[in-house]
Amino acid sequence: MNFKILSKDGKARVGELETFFGKIATPVFMPVGTLATVKGITKQTLEKLNFDIILSNTYHLMLRPGMNIIKKIGGLNKFMSWNKSILTDSGGFQVMSLGKSVIVDKEGVTFRSHLDGKLVRLNAEKAIDIQYNLGSTISMIFDECVPFPYSYSDTEESLKRSVNWSKRSMQAYKKRKGHGVFGIVQGGMYKELRKLSVKENLENDFDGYAIGGLAVGESKEQLIDITAFTSNLLPVNKPRYLMGIGYPEDILNAVKSGVDMFDCVLPTRSGRTGLAFTSLGNIKIKNAKYAYDDSPLDPNCNCEVCLSYSKAYLHHLVKSSEILGSVFLTHHNLCFYSNLMKRIRSAIRENNLINLKV
Amino acid sequence: MNFKILSKDGKARVGELETFFGKIATPVFMPVGTLATVKGITKQTLEKLNFDIILSNTYHLMLRPGMNIIKKIGGLNKFMSWNKSILTDSGGFQVMSLGKSVIVDKEGVTFRSHLDGKLVRLNAEKAIDIQYNLGSTISMIFDECVPFPYSYSDTEESLKRSVNWSKRSMQAYKKRKGHGVFGIVQGGMYKELRKLSVKENLENDFDGYAIGGLAVGESKEQLIDITAFTSNLLPVNKPRYLMGIGYPEDILNAVKSGVDMFDCVLPTRSGRTGLAFTSLGNIKIKNAKYAYDDSPLDPNCNCEVCLSYSKAYLHHLVKSSEILGSVFLTHHNLCFYSNLMKRIRSAIRENNLINLKV
Repeated sequence: MNFKILSKDGKARVGELETFFGKIATPVFMPVGTLATVKGITKQTLEKLNFDIILSNTYHLMLRPGMNIIKKIGGLNKFMSWNKSILTDSGGFQVMSLGKSVIVDKEGVTFRSHLDGKLVRLNAEKAIDIQYNLGSTISMIFDECVPFPYSYSDTEESLKRSVNWSKRSMQAYKKRKGHGVFGIVQGGMYKELRKLSVKENLENDFDGYAIGGLAVGESKEQLIDITAFTSNLLPVNKPRYLMGIGYPEDILNAVKSGVDMFDCVLPTRSGRTGLAFTSLGNIKIKNAKYAYDDSPLDPNCNCEVCLSYSKAYLHHLVKSSEILGSVFLTHHNLCFYSNLMKRIRSAIRENNLINLKV
Repeated sequence: MNFKILSKDGKARVGELETFFGKIATPVFMPVGTLATVKGITKQTLEKLNFDIILSNTYHLMLRPGMNIIKKIGGLNKFMSWNKSILTDSGGFQVMSLGKSVIVDKEGVTFRSHLDGKLVRLNAEKAIDIQYNLGSTISMIFDECVPFPYSYSDTEESLKRSVNWSKRSMQAYKKRKGHGVFGIVQGGMYKELRKLSVKENLENDFDGYAIGGLAVGESKEQLIDITAFTSNLLPVNKPRYLMGIGYPEDILNAVKSGVDMFDCVLPTRSGRTGLAFTSLGNIKIKNAKYAYDDSPLDPNCNCEVCLSYSKAYLHHLVKSSEILGSVFLTHHNLCFYSNLMKRIRSAIRENNLINLKV
């Protein structure tokens, strides 16, 4: 796996991440395909919208359809018929979000499946092994993500576990050409612990570094501050990935701190609940005022949805819970995010990121 | 509106129906787009699958989004961004299916909306007016569809109303170039009444004739018998449309009796519930035996779904209630129906319908 920086504007950078499946222009947004599908969106649409990498979830896939099936079919790319890169999370974040149904010990975690209540065990070796069998282009190490707010001593204790799991993940990871493994910086809202986490991460010489433990309920200021602080400590020649972020302005702020990669359910989940991102602001399409509106969702968008359909039609589809309501709004939102990243990359190349409005 | 017969095999015919929007090869299957959308299927997919006409429902559209909206936007074609033909039913069949919530009088029907319980009135003039405002390429007259079983005298009484409503529908209908209006033959399972209904219909000189009042619970034998009997009484130079049918073998049987047009929710509704039509028989994709099956739904199908995805993946999507599960199975089923009609037309041209297996 190869990463090179092509252009810089302050700390922001335009780069190119080359994997087994081809080149990915960074900063990049990765649509979330939890269950081996970006909900409602075909691969043809993803390709048309220029997405070269998606994210999928180890935790969800290990429960459904289960690893035996995906392994037998020949990996996640083949299973979902997607011939581009896939980054998989390690399951750590999602296991933690189960709350009381999780028992964390020094060696790993035990939790009850949200599907059938069965006890399931996950640890560093297993998380890496699953991602190997998925054939993930980018695997993530297994770590613990702490809730917010969380005390210094609890965060420190959790970090110790994560450092250990991270090392074990790296040891368990088997190299494949054009594939890579990323470390994850934790440490909650404590800069001292973030610094310690970066130091420990660097010892493993990962192919990239993620900033984890954010988007957990902290303030905007904390998000910006911790992201900038952590990003600044990471090696310049490796991709930096801010996990689970986010809103367009959060992405822009993080890019300005030197972050290269993003994922978030926002454009897809919002699409399914009738919220559209547009160049003129957000639109709640169910709002009665759109019932008679024959203008497109976004007059400045060139996606198939905006070229073909009126707000009135989309209002009708979403109000009637029609499948195409979810499909069309998700399609448009992903186009908005794809264009957002394109505009960000252009602005960096033109040394004009400061004037970019999102 | 123009209809010509190009080829015959026994009573079966290949024809061409030319409307304002272009030519339609018959026998034709019309996918059902109840609420101004063929559920889960984009117009690009419909076009790729060679559908030149779809059906939509007056009853549903008058309640949601309501006629004011579609009229204001400029008609149903513009509303749903569909640049091909649309046939709309008149609402009669669906109103009747509301059962006890309907009061039928000589002049029309009063019913409670299934959405908000409000009282709604529908009669011949209103049904035709709504279809005019929808801009329907083919409008259907307003009639009464009787349940099954139903006595001779009740069927006869109902038919009298339908005859009257049919005449009033024709009077209310306003001609537009490339558009047309179809009569509907009723009369239940009674050939004498079917004959009477045909006679009355012919007095109106409609652009085409539908056979209604079937697919209501009668036996296969009755369906075949009444269809053949009625079709035989209809003028050869006008399109014949068997409403709400159906299964591939029912379509084939009706084609052999000289029927040209069909609609049914079967391929779309089945797609959403995990039933696929294939050249090797029906497949219930949720069945556990498909969990590890890496072969396509139908090895003899050239649709995008069969070219890209395994049964294992489709099984996973449908079991997980993923949007694309419904989308992909519906897409495939519509391809199956499109190919079915193409095979039927080819067999007629080759004078070989007798050997066609569906």
